[in-house]
Amino acid sequence: MLEHLDESECLRLISPGGIGRVGYAGTFGPTVLPVNYMLHNGIVVFRTGQHSLMGEDLRTGIAGAEYKVAFEIDDIDVVAREGWSVLVRGSAHHVDSETERASVLEAGVQPWPGGEREHFIRIIPGSITGRRVRQGEAPA
Amino acid sequence: MLEHLDESECLRLISPGGIGRVGYAGTFGPTVLPVNYMLHNGIVVFRTGQHSLMGEDLRTGIAGAEYKVAFEIDDIDVVAREGWSVLVRGSAHHVDSETERASVLEAGVQPWPGGEREHFIRIIPGSITGRRVRQGEAPA
Repeated sequence: MLEHLDESECLRLISPGGIGRVGYAGTFGPTVLPVNYMLHNGIVVFRTGQHSLMGEDLRTGIAGAEYKVAFEIDDIDVVAREGWSVLVRGSAHHVDSETERASVLEAGVQPWPGGEREHFIRIIPGSITGRRVRQGEAPA
Repeated sequence: MLEHLDESECLRLISPGGIGRVGYAGTFGPTVLPVNYMLHNGIVVFRTGQHSLMGEDLRTGIAGAEYKVAFEIDDIDVVAREGWSVLVRGSAHHVDSETERASVLEAGVQPWPGGEREHFIRIIPGSITGRRVRQGEAPA
């Protein structure tokens, strides 16, 4: 019922981009928030507000040595009770250089809430794991 | 565009249950995984496998003093670029007593992947925050 997915299958599933959830240890404890992401050269990239809670938390975190975060993407059919989820664990970094920002913008990374979202974050995957759930048999 | 939701609105949005994502500091770093949850008397309840990664991580965590976790629920329309998300922060606990387990089972908490999922977890909310994104105007 629960099948583990290999890394290449995980990358295939998450490559279209869309909504993912960033998990990290924030100022107010463990935090999980949705963002609009893209996979850009194998790296998860998203934008957030400079002055949003997440923006400030991540800026503080990234200012330290290495800031480990989780990034979860899934596609679940609650009616069929089937779906998959992928968990990317890695370190979060700013996208600082103009070249890099231009490249990310060109890739089309859009912030989800609109407005001023000028904080570019990338997550360099350390590990990528995934699982898929299928309902093997028709319900009794 | 980005609207903050008060606690009663958050509770209303998450009360039907469904898929949520648990975020915590695990053995292998920050972790976010989807679960099938219910809101039962204002408390988030879900089941996980005793021997799954999450089951073992949470058991280890909960064995300590107080184990803070995040629980995120959202409903996002990627095409319309609208939706909401709710973030519950709180402490995770086992559901141990037979009475409590019976009550949770009666409430209909189903594990998502099926099979043996005999670890009942509840998250007692410490804070509940939410945000909603609407596209105010037609795109230029």
